Amino acid sequence: MKIVTGGITAPKGIKATGLHCGIKSAGKKDLALIYSEVLANAAAVFTRNKVKAAPIILSMENIKGGKAQAIIANSGCANACTGAEGLEDARLMGKSVASLFNIQSKHVLVASTGAIGKKLPMSSILSGMRALSKRISHDGSSDAADAILTTDTRRKEIAVRIKAGGKTITIGGIAKGSGMIAPNMATMFAFITTDAEVSPSKLKAYLSGSVEKSFNMTVVDKDTSTNDCVFIMANGLAKNTPLSGDVEKEFKRALDHICVYLAKEIARDGEGATKLIEVKVAGAKTASDARLAAKAVAGSDLVKSAIFGEDPNFGRIMAAVGYSGADINADLVNVFIGNTQVVNSGKASGFNIHNVKEHMKGKEILISIMLGQGTSIATAWGCDLTYNYVKINAKYHT
Amino acid sequence: MKIVTGGITAPKGIKATGLHCGIKSAGKKDLALIYSEVLANAAAVFTRNKVKAAPIILSMENIKGGKAQAIIANSGCANACTGAEGLEDARLMGKSVASLFNIQSKHVLVASTGAIGKKLPMSSILSGMRALSKRISHDGSSDAADAILTTDTRRKEIAVRIKAGGKTITIGGIAKGSGMIAPNMATMFAFITTDAEVSPSKLKAYLSGSVEKSFNMTVVDKDTSTNDCVFIMANGLAKNTPLSGDVEKEFKRALDHICVYLAKEIARDGEGATKLIEVKVAGAKTASDARLAAKAVAGSDLVKSAIFGEDPNFGRIMAAVGYSGADINADLVNVFIGNTQVVNSGKASGFNIHNVKEHMKGKEILISIMLGQGTSIATAWGCDLTYNYVKINAKYHT
Repeated sequence: MKIVTGGITAPKGIKATGLHCGIKSAGKKDLALIYSEVLANAAAVFTRNKVKAAPIILSMENIKGGKAQAIIANSGCANACTGAEGLEDARLMGKSVASLFNIQSKHVLVASTGAIGKKLPMSSILSGMRALSKRISHDGSSDAADAILTTDTRRKEIAVRIKAGGKTITIGGIAKGSGMIAPNMATMFAFITTDAEVSPSKLKAYLSGSVEKSFNMTVVDKDTSTNDCVFIMANGLAKNTPLSGDVEKEFKRALDHICVYLAKEIARDGEGATKLIEVKVAGAKTASDARLAAKAVAGSDLVKSAIFGEDPNFGRIMAAVGYSGADINADLVNVFIGNTQVVNSGKASGFNIHNVKEHMKGKEILISIMLGQGTSIATAWGCDLTYNYVKINAKYHT
Repeated sequence: MKIVTGGITAPKGIKATGLHCGIKSAGKKDLALIYSEVLANAAAVFTRNKVKAAPIILSMENIKGGKAQAIIANSGCANACTGAEGLEDARLMGKSVASLFNIQSKHVLVASTGAIGKKLPMSSILSGMRALSKRISHDGSSDAADAILTTDTRRKEIAVRIKAGGKTITIGGIAKGSGMIAPNMATMFAFITTDAEVSPSKLKAYLSGSVEKSFNMTVVDKDTSTNDCVFIMANGLAKNTPLSGDVEKEFKRALDHICVYLAKEIARDGEGATKLIEVKVAGAKTASDARLAAKAVAGSDLVKSAIFGEDPNFGRIMAAVGYSGADINADLVNVFIGNTQVVNSGKASGFNIHNVKEHMKGKEILISIMLGQGTSIATAWGCDLTYNYVKINAKYHT
């Protein structure tokens, strides 16, 4: 597996672009298009929030056939809580892309992110689409990645390449996400393309597996959005034989890498965040226990505040493990912050606070928890809770 | 039912006091004692955190007999994650009270709150206890209420009186709680006394019923503590006949009032809070759905930040209802902030933002949500998320 440049347009036959059409103020990019030169197999994972935005409802319908050729996404307006009119607007977005590229509208996936409860400015979007269709190119990944950002402070894109027999398979992805991020669903946007030939059912299975280990282990504020989705399109232009054996494993590893990279980038860029928190749990009775414990610690407001304050507050870590729902025995738990053991068999280890403080001054804080109950492991990612999280979300005006 | 003064010492035969013994700095009260002149029936509700502090383990053991005569509680040190030594220290606290008052140590309930992972300064506590036993009095409720506070900014106490046939029954309570407050357990400390004659099993049933509607509906940060407990002692000095019919109903209402009052005081005094949030859900299919929806909205960091910013962000309220786990249909949901309808059948109502802004400037923010699915209701309480929450929890040092 090799990391390559080019982001979502790195795979063969994928074009993308992004521009400002007028949804956001100050000329910020707000409309993105990703297009495959040939019809691709496709799969998706959607938010589990019961309040679903119009584009989610539409894309859930469109993905049923397992095929897609384009993804149109806007930022600045979520088109959520907008009723039947909102659904019409989402459909119109899909239809317009279809007519510009002469493809079927059921092959267009639609995604929106931004303020809830506002109508999309459809005339701006429609004229933006015409411009997009002219600008779209094989090196437009960064523009597309920029156009899906909301409170994010940086672009999130990646691509990797693997060998598949005599052929080369490339996978690329972009993502957005900064707030309203909870670990019990897809969380945020991630769009992934590949030139691999993969059936829709396999693609769905690979995607779900990777999402489980990545976006579903990322928590900023435990608020599950109404608009989250992960889309993947596989256009087959790599001309590989069906994935199996070692090549299939390598493909899954590559897709995991893409998803974990983007998930960590989202956690690192959590609203107001100054530090990435990585929580590794080992020795759990079951994989589910490991995930519960890791996510509870990564998501605890008290742990997050302590990390912002660079304080090795192992008591809050122990408390989060205890309420996580995981099957644990406090007397068997060991906890490390960085390389320093802070809890030994459920009790304060009597550690040297200066050693651990050094680690806590860094930008990536590692918390390792050994439950001593079994062999299952999991990793979750989060970020610290800062004044700026409150500021961003208190200053935001409806 | 009449509100009366006297707090936890308002019932007949109850004495209390609190003082500074040396656990906290700056001379702040840190040790509280509540004592019944006669052996009382007793019940308790404990944290569901699997990491349980030593005093919780001890008190769970002691409450099994359904009898208690004293509660000893300290703040400033949680005696959690302290292993076998911590349990010995908790036992020593109980035994010392027992020997000072010549009662059995199994009749002493012990509670500790404060920093996790530190040993109790037992010599300070033991000399403090002797002083407590001399100072204890029929008007010491406020001193006891002060001595259990941690990051709280104000004392929490209440008492009510009801008629029971020809007799008078009084119930009094004190509580503490400000952070590490989640709605899936007892949450925090609340100590309640009454001079009613009630059997231990009925007392447990009444207490559980009231806790479900009050402390279990209060959320500050979704972090469930290792030390939370609610204790009630009923010493029978009111000489009432067994509670039944209207008198039993009145007793339950009075106990509900005590618990809801203290729960709201805890939410209002949440770490860094500037506003109390009350979320009323009606029209749910089941009581459990109503509770889930109410707690999700009251606990959402995004809703809490919006309320700090005095912004009527109904999108975040809808999103929280959607991910709460309650059975909902977005198109049937109506939401009010104060008296202003902000969501009508799942869509923005086109409300006048100035009307709702007036309400949001207040100290108590009311969010009413009608799910339109059934007849069940619930109310939850929380507080806004502010810079000071982050400050309090980032500046706190292990």
